[in-house]
Amino acid sequence: MDYYSSQMSKLIEELSCLPGIGSKSAARLAFHLIHMPLDDVKRLASTMVEARENVRYCAQCYTLTDQELCPICSNSSRDHKTIMVVENTRDLAAYEKTGKYNGVYHVLHGAISPMLGIGPEDIKLKELIERLQGDVDEVIIATNSSLEGETTAMYISKLIKPTGIKVSRIASGVPVGGDLEYIDEVTLLRALEGRTQL
Amino acid sequence: MDYYSSQMSKLIEELSCLPGIGSKSAARLAFHLIHMPLDDVKRLASTMVEARENVRYCAQCYTLTDQELCPICSNSSRDHKTIMVVENTRDLAAYEKTGKYNGVYHVLHGAISPMLGIGPEDIKLKELIERLQGDVDEVIIATNSSLEGETTAMYISKLIKPTGIKVSRIASGVPVGGDLEYIDEVTLLRALEGRTQL
Repeated sequence: MDYYSSQMSKLIEELSCLPGIGSKSAARLAFHLIHMPLDDVKRLASTMVEARENVRYCAQCYTLTDQELCPICSNSSRDHKTIMVVENTRDLAAYEKTGKYNGVYHVLHGAISPMLGIGPEDIKLKELIERLQGDVDEVIIATNSSLEGETTAMYISKLIKPTGIKVSRIASGVPVGGDLEYIDEVTLLRALEGRTQL
Repeated sequence: MDYYSSQMSKLIEELSCLPGIGSKSAARLAFHLIHMPLDDVKRLASTMVEARENVRYCAQCYTLTDQELCPICSNSSRDHKTIMVVENTRDLAAYEKTGKYNGVYHVLHGAISPMLGIGPEDIKLKELIERLQGDVDEVIIATNSSLEGETTAMYISKLIKPTGIKVSRIASGVPVGGDLEYIDEVTLLRALEGRTQL
């Protein structure tokens, strides 16, 4: 790529290492950056470095935060006796966007996957069990509805059940607005199994 | 977006201002950056700032470079009497990738577009005319085959013709490997008009 200047080539190469950014997008981003005001580029660069330096795991729920405790864990008006277990911070954000869940979370940072060699000790599961020593009423398992998510859910429920704490799993079924015609068979069967009385 | 930490939200917001990056991609990039080694993040940040600070226009052809003259203009083995006019540096790179063009370039940084209010004085056209004072045999116009590109090509050819310098336009027609069935009518007619004797 020496048809661009060497610094441009270097920038394009580094940008194209980011996820979801191929060489064409990287070139487009690089050209955009070159034409941005210098101050804006400097601000973006320092935001990146500062975030990388300061963002860490919440000491309680393991979501990403720049404080010791995340805003959710340090919010006393939330129900700290209900813990929703999610695979990652983006899933937490998805539930937070609903604005209807008032409990706290536990972020596993992954799911058990024998295929990828990810075992129970590779995710924040030990940390979840430790939290259950405290005063907890219910653990809601909100891992993905994938093979790995289901495996993880089963594993966690088996670990927690002997302690007597209530364990639940979010429902699996037809998405709201979904057209039955286009929904896969496994989901249709799940929706049937999980039917509720009207 | 205060379900993420404030620094994450700031990073996501700044990333989502880049072209082609929506809020979901920005979140994905931000999470990736947070998990990258700190040194890599610092290097990417400094590459961005350095490129923005040092990359400028080549004094001769106006492509982007970090030297006074770009590698193509300062290469004495290239034919400096043939100038290919392109809209932007990416188009230059597209022709350089073919490896078969040995002349030099002139980058307009845009095309004439009355719709967008871009006139001949808004692109590097005056600079092209100045270059023609030197020893030039041919100007090859390789602007895009769009309305703006064609307008610009016509405009340039009318400006240059009186000087007696040869002006040509790259061919427009069916792309190699293209299936006639799926090609638009205007292209088919162009290909017909531009037919060559076998």
